[in-house]
Amino acid sequence: MAISERIQTMMSGSSFIRKMFETGSELKNQYGSENVFDFSLGNPSMRPPDVFNESLLKAASDHLHHAYMPNAGYPEVRTSVARFLSKEQHVPLTEKNIIMTTGAGGALNIILKTILNPGDTVIASTPCFMEYKFYCDNHGGTLVLAEGTEDFNLNVSAIEAAITPQTAAVIINSPNNPSGRVYPEETIKELSAMLSRKSRDTGRTIYLISDEPYRKIVYDGITVPSILDHYNNSVICTSYSKDLSIPGERIGWLAVHPEADDFENLISGTILCNRILGYVNAPALMQRTIAELQGVSVDIGQYKKKRDLLVDELQKMGYRFRVPEGTFYLFVKAPGGDDLKIVDELLQERILVVPGRGFSYPGFFRIAYCVKDSVIEGSLPGFKRALKRIEK
Amino acid sequence: MAISERIQTMMSGSSFIRKMFETGSELKNQYGSENVFDFSLGNPSMRPPDVFNESLLKAASDHLHHAYMPNAGYPEVRTSVARFLSKEQHVPLTEKNIIMTTGAGGALNIILKTILNPGDTVIASTPCFMEYKFYCDNHGGTLVLAEGTEDFNLNVSAIEAAITPQTAAVIINSPNNPSGRVYPEETIKELSAMLSRKSRDTGRTIYLISDEPYRKIVYDGITVPSILDHYNNSVICTSYSKDLSIPGERIGWLAVHPEADDFENLISGTILCNRILGYVNAPALMQRTIAELQGVSVDIGQYKKKRDLLVDELQKMGYRFRVPEGTFYLFVKAPGGDDLKIVDELLQERILVVPGRGFSYPGFFRIAYCVKDSVIEGSLPGFKRALKRIEK
Repeated sequence: MAISERIQTMMSGSSFIRKMFETGSELKNQYGSENVFDFSLGNPSMRPPDVFNESLLKAASDHLHHAYMPNAGYPEVRTSVARFLSKEQHVPLTEKNIIMTTGAGGALNIILKTILNPGDTVIASTPCFMEYKFYCDNHGGTLVLAEGTEDFNLNVSAIEAAITPQTAAVIINSPNNPSGRVYPEETIKELSAMLSRKSRDTGRTIYLISDEPYRKIVYDGITVPSILDHYNNSVICTSYSKDLSIPGERIGWLAVHPEADDFENLISGTILCNRILGYVNAPALMQRTIAELQGVSVDIGQYKKKRDLLVDELQKMGYRFRVPEGTFYLFVKAPGGDDLKIVDELLQERILVVPGRGFSYPGFFRIAYCVKDSVIEGSLPGFKRALKRIEK
Repeated sequence: MAISERIQTMMSGSSFIRKMFETGSELKNQYGSENVFDFSLGNPSMRPPDVFNESLLKAASDHLHHAYMPNAGYPEVRTSVARFLSKEQHVPLTEKNIIMTTGAGGALNIILKTILNPGDTVIASTPCFMEYKFYCDNHGGTLVLAEGTEDFNLNVSAIEAAITPQTAAVIINSPNNPSGRVYPEETIKELSAMLSRKSRDTGRTIYLISDEPYRKIVYDGITVPSILDHYNNSVICTSYSKDLSIPGERIGWLAVHPEADDFENLISGTILCNRILGYVNAPALMQRTIAELQGVSVDIGQYKKKRDLLVDELQKMGYRFRVPEGTFYLFVKAPGGDDLKIVDELLQERILVVPGRGFSYPGFFRIAYCVKDSVIEGSLPGFKRALKRIEK
């Protein structure tokens, strides 16, 4: 074997989500894509809003700006993000607080590399996006999981119990992938108070990393609470992937609270890491494209319609779940309790979903409903038959 | 201190190149950019070729494709790269050999993460681009330097002497940053034979990683030898940054020789690493933009004119250097021998260059002449005065 042993091991246990994506491609080749109901990947079917296309064409018509810029990104783009974010988070920010990144994945990696010493831990609450495990491991850290409550909220006591002197950060993701849960303001307050207390106790700053690419995809008048407003040692990582339906473009940012401990080093560290991890800078053209699109998003009403359709129909059939407040995911209890079994039954109906164990939460499965209405409608008989076979 | 100790240390010894870039920004604010002669960064002043702008506008007008695609990139883009590269390298390649990446920096990081076990070493020849040190360190490896020959060629014996059972790869960069040297075919043959022999001796595959973003920027009818043609265990990392003057867009690729040892794992490993390092995929729009631009580049004749102007004038003044065969760098012997001293003298003339120690090669300095002719012309009296002061 000529490659790294760790990578070899990782490959054998790789992502359930991507596996499903690839199984899906095979099924589509075999049966035609109109006969496969692919709910496996959070890959939005909706087109970007018209203003995005206009802004992109404008940026693309300007032939001057494809060069390197400071590793943190164009100052004027960061100013534009800071201005919007100051209002959203109720904390005054400037371009000094913002680093443009290669999507939220880039943002998470640069902050983790900046803060992790070898052997450090980062805590996340299940169910959660398991790429965090790789992101921590990339930089010598270990992801430690704390189980969420039964209704998918954070369990602050469980997180507290997982904290040790090696804990560098807690990552939260609200609205949550895969559950669609938005953590209530009360919980964020409780978490912040606990983290402040534990930081004092352990004598080490515990950063709160808020991964929030779904912030704008919420329903029924819900608002996602500000993180910066509640905890000084907080860092937001996000992207325009879901807001604007452009996940392939890899554009996002990281924001550091102006009063975070060791602020200057934290910011300089993330800028250095943006460079040395090989990102160098967020893609130039996309930075210029999103500059004036702060607060813009695709029509969330369309996602709400999809959610409501799916919720109504699956409920009628007898599937059990908590109605999600945000994201375009539905996290459903596996009938019979075995997530691999229901995933397999659904696969026989050419319906692709992801087993809960892909989110460290067996006994559930995730439906990514960022698909055309026809995919949802076409899948319903299959969902019904699969459930019947399991209940038999 | 709340951030990682390693990052803290790295920050204090950060890149000379970027430091100069930032000093340059300050000087420009102070004196006006027309009064600063900035040769510090390989940031091309030339605009992208017209066909790039046309292709970009075409890609941007198609509103459909900003979604995720396979982590390796669009199959049709990879096919287009493979078709061109097969001719250039005289080795038949398909889309299976190509991974689209976030620039050459992304390509280097994913191959290094794929092959490095903790404690492994990677060998590079000085003078060289010192980001390699960070890229190796990111993944638990160590960069080991072997000194090049006096005329900046590879010293194959020195590289051989640096090989141990922990050696996972040798990185070469031709045309070379900072020396502009193109390694001759004879040297590549000698290197390949040595690596084959040492791989047999140590019982471990030693990969040859060829970082070649300057391949198309060569002068006087020189051709850069094919690497794949000479060594099966070779991997090419490159980008369109310099060819098309678009370094801010972060688009490049990695190619693996079809007969490389452990080929399937090597390719799957790089795809996995592209995902888990947070790149996820190369920017979608730029993939589609460059698909049909294989072999296209800016007008190299313009760089040649700049090189010739600088070479003639500096030679007349009494500066000593080897005339570069490629890149847009001139690597000049520091008059008096101290690279920091000449850099400082030039700074007093508002001329920004990078000391050789930034490339592990003290006693020289690098001029990045990818600037407007007026910058070269305007700088000449300053170059003359600085030299005089040192010679006094």
